[in-house]
Amino acid sequence: MRDFLPAEKARRERVLAVIRDRYRAHGFDEIETPVMEDYDRLHAGIGGDNEKLAFTVLKRGLDAEAIVAAAADPAGVDTRALSDLGLRYDLTVPLARFYATHRAELGAVFRSIQMAPVWRAERPQKGRYRQFVQCDIDIIGDATGRAEAELLTASLDTLDALGLEGGSIRINDRRALDWMLDSFGFTAEERPGVLITIDKLDKIGPAGVVTTLRQAQGPDGQAQGPGGGGPGAAAVDAFEKFLLRPQTREYRPYGEGQIRKALPEGAPDAIVAHLVAIGEAVGAARAAAGSESGVSGIPLVFDPFLVRGMGYYTGTIFELAHPSVDYSLGGGGRYDGMIGRFLGQDVPAVGFSIGFERIVDLLESTEDATASAIVLVHDRDLPVAELVAVKAALVAGGARVRLEQRPKNLKALLERAAADGYTSFASVGAGQTAGDLQIKPLD
Amino acid sequence: MRDFLPAEKARRERVLAVIRDRYRAHGFDEIETPVMEDYDRLHAGIGGDNEKLAFTVLKRGLDAEAIVAAAADPAGVDTRALSDLGLRYDLTVPLARFYATHRAELGAVFRSIQMAPVWRAERPQKGRYRQFVQCDIDIIGDATGRAEAELLTASLDTLDALGLEGGSIRINDRRALDWMLDSFGFTAEERPGVLITIDKLDKIGPAGVVTTLRQAQGPDGQAQGPGGGGPGAAAVDAFEKFLLRPQTREYRPYGEGQIRKALPEGAPDAIVAHLVAIGEAVGAARAAAGSESGVSGIPLVFDPFLVRGMGYYTGTIFELAHPSVDYSLGGGGRYDGMIGRFLGQDVPAVGFSIGFERIVDLLESTEDATASAIVLVHDRDLPVAELVAVKAALVAGGARVRLEQRPKNLKALLERAAADGYTSFASVGAGQTAGDLQIKPLD
Repeated sequence: MRDFLPAEKARRERVLAVIRDRYRAHGFDEIETPVMEDYDRLHAGIGGDNEKLAFTVLKRGLDAEAIVAAAADPAGVDTRALSDLGLRYDLTVPLARFYATHRAELGAVFRSIQMAPVWRAERPQKGRYRQFVQCDIDIIGDATGRAEAELLTASLDTLDALGLEGGSIRINDRRALDWMLDSFGFTAEERPGVLITIDKLDKIGPAGVVTTLRQAQGPDGQAQGPGGGGPGAAAVDAFEKFLLRPQTREYRPYGEGQIRKALPEGAPDAIVAHLVAIGEAVGAARAAAGSESGVSGIPLVFDPFLVRGMGYYTGTIFELAHPSVDYSLGGGGRYDGMIGRFLGQDVPAVGFSIGFERIVDLLESTEDATASAIVLVHDRDLPVAELVAVKAALVAGGARVRLEQRPKNLKALLERAAADGYTSFASVGAGQTAGDLQIKPLD
Repeated sequence: MRDFLPAEKARRERVLAVIRDRYRAHGFDEIETPVMEDYDRLHAGIGGDNEKLAFTVLKRGLDAEAIVAAAADPAGVDTRALSDLGLRYDLTVPLARFYATHRAELGAVFRSIQMAPVWRAERPQKGRYRQFVQCDIDIIGDATGRAEAELLTASLDTLDALGLEGGSIRINDRRALDWMLDSFGFTAEERPGVLITIDKLDKIGPAGVVTTLRQAQGPDGQAQGPGGGGPGAAAVDAFEKFLLRPQTREYRPYGEGQIRKALPEGAPDAIVAHLVAIGEAVGAARAAAGSESGVSGIPLVFDPFLVRGMGYYTGTIFELAHPSVDYSLGGGGRYDGMIGRFLGQDVPAVGFSIGFERIVDLLESTEDATASAIVLVHDRDLPVAELVAVKAALVAGGARVRLEQRPKNLKALLERAAADGYTSFASVGAGQTAGDLQIKPLD
């Protein structure tokens, strides 16, 4: 967990303000949920591995008897008996709970923004924090590709506004993955394990994927069924042949021809048409907004091997890439089954999460240079009323003003102020008003 | 704990943005600390009653033995053995810890803004929340009245910017209170109890204060010393005479004459001069900023009976009032001893906290009316690419745009959009571009 000092905090708030402004412009509405959620809701099995990392809040007023009872089971401590609340580990479980609670107060299609911290008890390591901010947008109640088009258009616009032009989005569909694995001969039971392995493609390469799938087989080369080992040898052979075929993975330009080329022959028309329509819509929106890339150069890439880890995805999935870094800057997908877990009635939903912490690290400090920010240096014995009057007049004129009593080392002081975003300085003496000051640039 | 729906969340964010903008203009810098602090720091005795309301986070990986041991003491459960972290219950303890950690990276005078949630395990009741936002500004490292003048000027300017003109600040000094109680004959041991009673003046009235002090005496009318009863009868008599003297409590205009009139005769010059200088500085700043109230009508009121509950105040104390409500909208004071608890070296500090939740409730919804916010109504079968292209063109032109598929009840839909801050609507049909739309006002 980190403290944020002034310069870093200001940078984070500027990035959040840009994201909020752009997503709001695209018709999304910000909501906020409490930091603590019910223990049972956090541990309902939706959050995958993240559930295990949830911080748990001690129930108040527990007596000794209750505490001893919680520790009585030799199978393990009954944390639930000690706690009824926990800190959220993501924003998706709270959103599903929020929607189930407030559905009657929301429109038929609800477009939400959430920008808020989440907590995971990770082991401390570089770039991993126990408290970090997530920025999620979600569209609940729209089963059509219009929702994906709105999500992706808004996210690309936001990246542009942050000065991260040139970003692209890899896209796939879980139904395409399922169909593809079916076509190679994998069974439905083998599918989750195979997807976990394919998800490592970027890390271990195609050969690594095939080896891992082979190693998971039983010694006789036969499939061992769920929990018993890996997938069948024939299916792995078919998959290997497809994976290692001599073809680039850069299926550009995005469109039906390239999507069909990227998949085994005979891909279902409905899935392909869905992916094509999303691309056309994003392209049309980019062109209408005057983006230079236009329809022909839309920043979408179809990736038939994109998996995305979470178990709850049911359709389109996407991942945000930028040429400056080799890790993803965000991602998301369609999760039509999850809201139903809380509401008791299925509602379609699709979400996109920007990797806020990664993007903040990537962006250079971009202090708002348009505003005038003045360091007002004064002597110790200048009457307070005179001093604050000069300051107040400058503030009323639109400036940001920091008072500094003249130190021995003025240079160090001004350097610190520049790091905090101040752009100029002036000395104020007895009898001077704001109009008398000589304001000089800091540089 | 509450969910915030779009309209309420937008209102909260607008208020926060105004506060941030004004305090930054006055030279304060925003910082952020983690939501969880070390258990021992939260329970160091600084937070008064709020400490007892802190939420405690369960230590991870506790085994049954450790849990049973925590419950073994008949005197009570050892919460500390179950926990090493807790949720902050205020922003002052984290600020003191932050300053002690980062002092070398901060200027000689550090002006901080903190706007963040805190948690208290209050019993749920109207207007009391278990998670609520505090907005604190603090100046650390300036022992002079310049700090008070900056705090109060910035806070009054912020209130003005929020549309809460007409606010006023009641001011007193703990040293004036101490001197006054001394002069009536209360002992230093009796003082804390007497201050707690005086703090109830607004609730129970002068007669109630005197009765309470009398009831705390022993049956012989003699002082019973610390812990044994109330203050001495002679001191209570002297205080009663002063408290009930026939004089208004509205000591205006603010200045030396009125401050001396409000106190018993012979008040120490240094304390009076300190209070007078703060008033002159705030008045000069208000006049220089062009406030209509000017120097003669500065919104300060000296209140010799203002106490402010927290035990850590050492000098000036203040409370923010507004004519529209009979409760305080914020307050603060000087706490020169507290930073030393963490740093091992005394550093002067003074802070002011705006009652964010109260102010949000007070302000009417003030959606930013300058931006164009358009509901774009479309038929179900309009091609997605056409639709999102029209939306993108409007967004690129500076509007905020929400798509809505034409419902049976268009009126209800438009009313909901108006509540969310949308100002106009248009229908879009096949073949239309953004330029073809007839945009009509929502009202």
